Amino acid sequence: MSELASLSPTQRSTVKRLPERERAERAELYQLLDSCLVCHLGIVVDGAPLVLPTGFARDGDTLYLHGSTGSASLRAAGAGIPVCVTVTRIDGIVYARSVFHHSMNYTSAVIHGAATPVIDPDAKLHALHAVTEHLAPGSWNATRQPTGKELAATAVLALPLHEASVKQRTGPPKDEPQDMAADVADWAGVLPIHQVWGTPLPDPHLGPMPAPPRVVARP
Amino acid sequence: MSELASLSPTQRSTVKRLPERERAERAELYQLLDSCLVCHLGIVVDGAPLVLPTGFARDGDTLYLHGSTGSASLRAAGAGIPVCVTVTRIDGIVYARSVFHHSMNYTSAVIHGAATPVIDPDAKLHALHAVTEHLAPGSWNATRQPTGKELAATAVLALPLHEASVKQRTGPPKDEPQDMAADVADWAGVLPIHQVWGTPLPDPHLGPMPAPPRVVARP
Repeated sequence: MSELASLSPTQRSTVKRLPERERAERAELYQLLDSCLVCHLGIVVDGAPLVLPTGFARDGDTLYLHGSTGSASLRAAGAGIPVCVTVTRIDGIVYARSVFHHSMNYTSAVIHGAATPVIDPDAKLHALHAVTEHLAPGSWNATRQPTGKELAATAVLALPLHEASVKQRTGPPKDEPQDMAADVADWAGVLPIHQVWGTPLPDPHLGPMPAPPRVVARP
Repeated sequence: MSELASLSPTQRSTVKRLPERERAERAELYQLLDSCLVCHLGIVVDGAPLVLPTGFARDGDTLYLHGSTGSASLRAAGAGIPVCVTVTRIDGIVYARSVFHHSMNYTSAVIHGAATPVIDPDAKLHALHAVTEHLAPGSWNATRQPTGKELAATAVLALPLHEASVKQRTGPPKDEPQDMAADVADWAGVLPIHQVWGTPLPDPHLGPMPAPPRVVARP
């Protein structure tokens, strides 16, 4: 087990409130990241926070952030300033017997660190492969590879998954005993939320062609 | 039409890259916010960004952020420092004929400003009503109202929806002409993503009782 097997090496990445929601296993961080399509990248610009939705992929203990070299925010984020990347998955709505105990089931990760641009051409291709396969599994081999010009227009930052925390709420509501003992209790429980794929919409320019298994049978 | 009918009153809330993705109508901001369950609240702590998933609701041109009075981050966010709130909905995966033009269809809003705690008891009840009905429509009237102690443990911040920008990508991939003209083009199009409700999971402590319409028939 590597030293990275557990999380929370620093004070600011230690869960302070509701510590029972902390998930300290690195595998839980991986599972969350691999199941989400977008992260929220926070940087400080002129003393104020800026939070932007950003495509990403995880490769081992590296998080790749993906964007355009034309993005001032991504350039700023890659200049060595502190960044915070947060990924959140909503798992369900928690209906309680009281307004107060209504909640959400969720899993979230907060990652702190400094990101660096991936410049080396081989490393960049490796990172773009990870990002593409995360966004659209199977597309790397099925579609045209990037040209030099396209590579130059693409920015990838690498952020080590070193300083991170994971929180999760699961299970039924935690109501007050007096509410649960009421003669006629209101319904209480969890309404799960799932993300599902719809029917593929072919590009109008496309000739008659069925969508391939990597699209129609995407897990 | 109020002066708030359009967005982007400041330089930092003006979409700089891909301006064709900007959505300048206030109604599009409302629609996005009302369709999402969680926002990402960014603040600056000790010079570094901190981004936290946060429950919220929109009421007119006010965004209410919801949490616990025990949350140091929410207390900090309510102390008048600049905050950035970002809300993102992923609408589909854009499969292109080239790796480079793969993308996501999405709608996102970035809101800048300063948040203030909602203290007045009537105003706080009003805000909590909005937050509860956003999270669990119908629950405000169907479940026990907050006690004074519960109200005191609940923090609500108000952020004016004044300085905001909305971006959206829709439609098919934008491939290069030479890729679209290839003899055997790869499939290209959009795989939509939908959020759906699962089967309600009753609290194990609950007696036999069907889930109410506000849960089973939630839109």
